[in-house]
Amino acid sequence: MTEVEIITIGDELLIGQVVDTNSAFMAEKLNQAGFDIRWKTTVGDIKKDITDALKLAFSRASIILVTGGLGPTNDDITKHTLCDFFNTKLVFDAETLKTVEEVVGQSGRQLNELTRSQAFVPQNCTVIQNRVGTAPVTWFEHDGKILVSMPGVPYEMKWAMENEIIPRLKERFSDTGAILHRSFWVKNYSESMLAQKLTQFEESLSDFVKLAYLPTSGVIRLRLTGKHSDALFIQSVINAESEKLKSILGEDIFSDTDDSLEVSLHKTLISKRLTLSVAESCTGGKLASLFTAQAGSSQYFQGGVVSYSNEAKINMLGVKSETLENYGAVSQEVVEQMAAGVCEKFQTDCAIAVSGVAGPSGGTPEKPVGTVWIAISFNKKIVSQQFLFTKNRETNILRSCNNGIRMLMEAIGK
Amino acid sequence: MTEVEIITIGDELLIGQVVDTNSAFMAEKLNQAGFDIRWKTTVGDIKKDITDALKLAFSRASIILVTGGLGPTNDDITKHTLCDFFNTKLVFDAETLKTVEEVVGQSGRQLNELTRSQAFVPQNCTVIQNRVGTAPVTWFEHDGKILVSMPGVPYEMKWAMENEIIPRLKERFSDTGAILHRSFWVKNYSESMLAQKLTQFEESLSDFVKLAYLPTSGVIRLRLTGKHSDALFIQSVINAESEKLKSILGEDIFSDTDDSLEVSLHKTLISKRLTLSVAESCTGGKLASLFTAQAGSSQYFQGGVVSYSNEAKINMLGVKSETLENYGAVSQEVVEQMAAGVCEKFQTDCAIAVSGVAGPSGGTPEKPVGTVWIAISFNKKIVSQQFLFTKNRETNILRSCNNGIRMLMEAIGK
Repeated sequence: MTEVEIITIGDELLIGQVVDTNSAFMAEKLNQAGFDIRWKTTVGDIKKDITDALKLAFSRASIILVTGGLGPTNDDITKHTLCDFFNTKLVFDAETLKTVEEVVGQSGRQLNELTRSQAFVPQNCTVIQNRVGTAPVTWFEHDGKILVSMPGVPYEMKWAMENEIIPRLKERFSDTGAILHRSFWVKNYSESMLAQKLTQFEESLSDFVKLAYLPTSGVIRLRLTGKHSDALFIQSVINAESEKLKSILGEDIFSDTDDSLEVSLHKTLISKRLTLSVAESCTGGKLASLFTAQAGSSQYFQGGVVSYSNEAKINMLGVKSETLENYGAVSQEVVEQMAAGVCEKFQTDCAIAVSGVAGPSGGTPEKPVGTVWIAISFNKKIVSQQFLFTKNRETNILRSCNNGIRMLMEAIGK
Repeated sequence: MTEVEIITIGDELLIGQVVDTNSAFMAEKLNQAGFDIRWKTTVGDIKKDITDALKLAFSRASIILVTGGLGPTNDDITKHTLCDFFNTKLVFDAETLKTVEEVVGQSGRQLNELTRSQAFVPQNCTVIQNRVGTAPVTWFEHDGKILVSMPGVPYEMKWAMENEIIPRLKERFSDTGAILHRSFWVKNYSESMLAQKLTQFEESLSDFVKLAYLPTSGVIRLRLTGKHSDALFIQSVINAESEKLKSILGEDIFSDTDDSLEVSLHKTLISKRLTLSVAESCTGGKLASLFTAQAGSSQYFQGGVVSYSNEAKINMLGVKSETLENYGAVSQEVVEQMAAGVCEKFQTDCAIAVSGVAGPSGGTPEKPVGTVWIAISFNKKIVSQQFLFTKNRETNILRSCNNGIRMLMEAIGK
C-alpha cells in the first residue's frame, strides 16, 4: 500500500482561525483512489518547521501532498522553502505567466507585480498549471518519492486534486492494491450497546478487515474496511462480512450507503422524482443548507421556512395560535402543523419539520435543553417523534438534522 | 513562549470521513490564553503511529494535547497506548465509575460492561472527571512536560478544554508572556493589491510583529500578531501599528473585530435591539444557519425563507411574477423585492436577501455561474449590489453570505 502524508501549512490553522477542511477532502479522494493516508501534519509559516516536516515526511511516506503558503504575499513562504529543501532556485516560466494572466483576466482584474511573481517556479519540478487561481501546482520527484505542493484556497486545491493530482498519482502508482469501505447506518443503539452486540462478529474478523464505530450526531455509522493487494479477494471478503452484519442487526440498519445521510436522501429524492420542503425552528436553516449544498438539489428542493419566532410559525406556516398557546412551540402538535403547513405552502411531496430547545438557555423542567420534536410528511401522512439530545447547541442542531433526514429516508424506503 | 503540540487520533480523520474541527477550537482557546501552538499531528488508531507521534511531540513541545481514541469500543486504543508509553498500567478508579454512572444515568440509560471499563484509568496520571461524557480526561506529567488526553467527541472536548484544561494550564504556566492579535476586515481589495498597498507598512514592522493576509470568502481579514514577554509593551506596539494601518486603509476597513463577520453582526443587532430576517435563494439556508448557530440569536433573528423555486419567491415573499418574467430570478429587481418582502412578512428592522447562480450548472452567457445579487434592507431603505464570484458552488454560497453580512454591517454602522 502506498503511504501518503498530508502537510498543511499556515499560521491561521494553528491559531484556530480556519478549520482545515482541505485535508479531509484530500484524504477522502486519496482513499477512494486506493491510497493509504497515514499522517497529517500542520505547521505554521515558519521555514524551520516546514523544513522539519518535509524531512520527516520524506523519511516515512511515499507521497507527500502539501497545501498552503503559496499566496503572493510576504507571509507565504512555502515556495522558497521548497526551493531550499530541494536545493534549487526559482526560474521564470512563460507558460505559467500566460495561465496567470488568463485567470486574472477572467475576473476582470489587471495583473500586478506581486501576482506576476507567481510565474517564478522552482527549477527542478514539473509545473501543473492552475486554471482556477494564480499559484501554480508544483510536482517534485526525489529519492523515488513524490511531493506535490498546491494552493491552500479550498476550491483551487479541490480543482487541482480532482483534475490533475489524483489522475497523475493513479497512473504513477497503478499497483496500489485495494482499500474497500462499506458503511452501515444504525439506529436504536448507543455506541457501547452496539459494540456489545457485535463482540463476536468483531472477534471473527480477519486481520485485514477492520470495523469502526463512527457515531455521527444522533446515529451511528459502522464502517467495514478491507485492505489487500488482491482487489477481487478483498471484495468477496467484505461482501461476506457485510451480509453477516446485516443479518445480526436486521431492521436497525436503516441505510447501507457510503454517502452521508443528506447525500443519500438527495439521491433518493432525485431518483424517485419527489419534491421536498423544510420547516425549521431550532435547526435554523441548517437542514435546508445541507440539501442546498449539493449541486442539483433544485431538482427536488422547493424551499423552506426558518420559523424562529411564534409569529413566523403562524404567519408563514399556518400553525394555529391556540395550538402554540396550549402546547408550546416545542410540541408534537406544533411540529406536525409545521410539517403539514410547509408541504401545503411549497406544494411538495415530502417535508421535514423541527422544533426544539437547542440551548444553552430556553429550557424548562418539562422541556429541558435538548428536547426536540421532529415530524416528517410523506404521501400526506405525518410521522413525528420526540428526542432528548444534549446540552450542547451545535450538537442538538446536527442531531436534529440527521434524525429528520433519517425519519424521511425510512418513510420513503429504498 | 510555551509551545504546544496537538495530536488528533482517529482513522476517520485520515480517510476524510470527519473534518477535524476539534484542533481549530483547541488552538483558538490556547492561543487566547497565550500559548503558542506550533504543531498539529493526526495519526490513525495504530499503536506504532500514536507512539511515534507521542515521542516526537515530547522531543519538541512543552504541552501535548491529545484527542480521540477513547471510546469504549475495540477500535479505540489511545488509553492502552498511553499506558505503554508511560510504562504504567490501568487501575480501577471508583470516583470515575461514579461519574460515568451519573452521566449515563442522566440520559436514562443503563451502564453496561463496556462503558464500565471507562473507570479503568492509567495509574500514574491525574484523572479529570468528564461531566458530559463517559471517557475521563487524563493528565500526565513527564520530564517537566505535560500531556493531556481527552475525548474526541467535540462537545466533550470543548467542555473539558473550557472548564478544566485551559484553567489548569494557565495556572501551571502563569509566566507565558503575551500573544496579541488584532484583526481588520478589508473590502475592495484583492490579496495582491492589498499587499502592494501595504509593502512599506510591512517592511517597517518589528521582528515580533507579524502581518497575515487571511482571505475569507469574499473579503480579506488582515491580522496583526505580536508576541513578547512584556505584555504591556506589546500592547502599545500593536496599538500603534493598528493606528497606522487604519490611516493607510481608511474606509476600506469596514470592521476591526476579532470576531467572525456573523458574530460581529450578531453582537451589533443585540446591542442595538434590531431584528433581522433573511430571504435566501442560492445560499439555501446557510445564511440563516450562520446566525442561528449563535446562542442568543433568538433575541433578534425572527426567521427566514429559503425561496429556491420561483413559486416560493412569489407565494412566500410577495415577489411579483411579472418581475420574475421580465428580469429573471437573479436580478436587482427580484432581490430587492425579496428583501422588502421578507422584512414585511417577518416584521423586522433589517433583512438580507440573496439570489444568484451558485453552480456548477444553471449559468447563461449573461448570468454566468457565480453571478449573485444581494440586497439589504435597513430602516426601510434598500441597498443592492451585484457580484461575480467563482465557478465553485460552496465558495459562491459562502461569499454570498459574507458579503450580505458585510453590506448590512456597513448600513447599520458601529
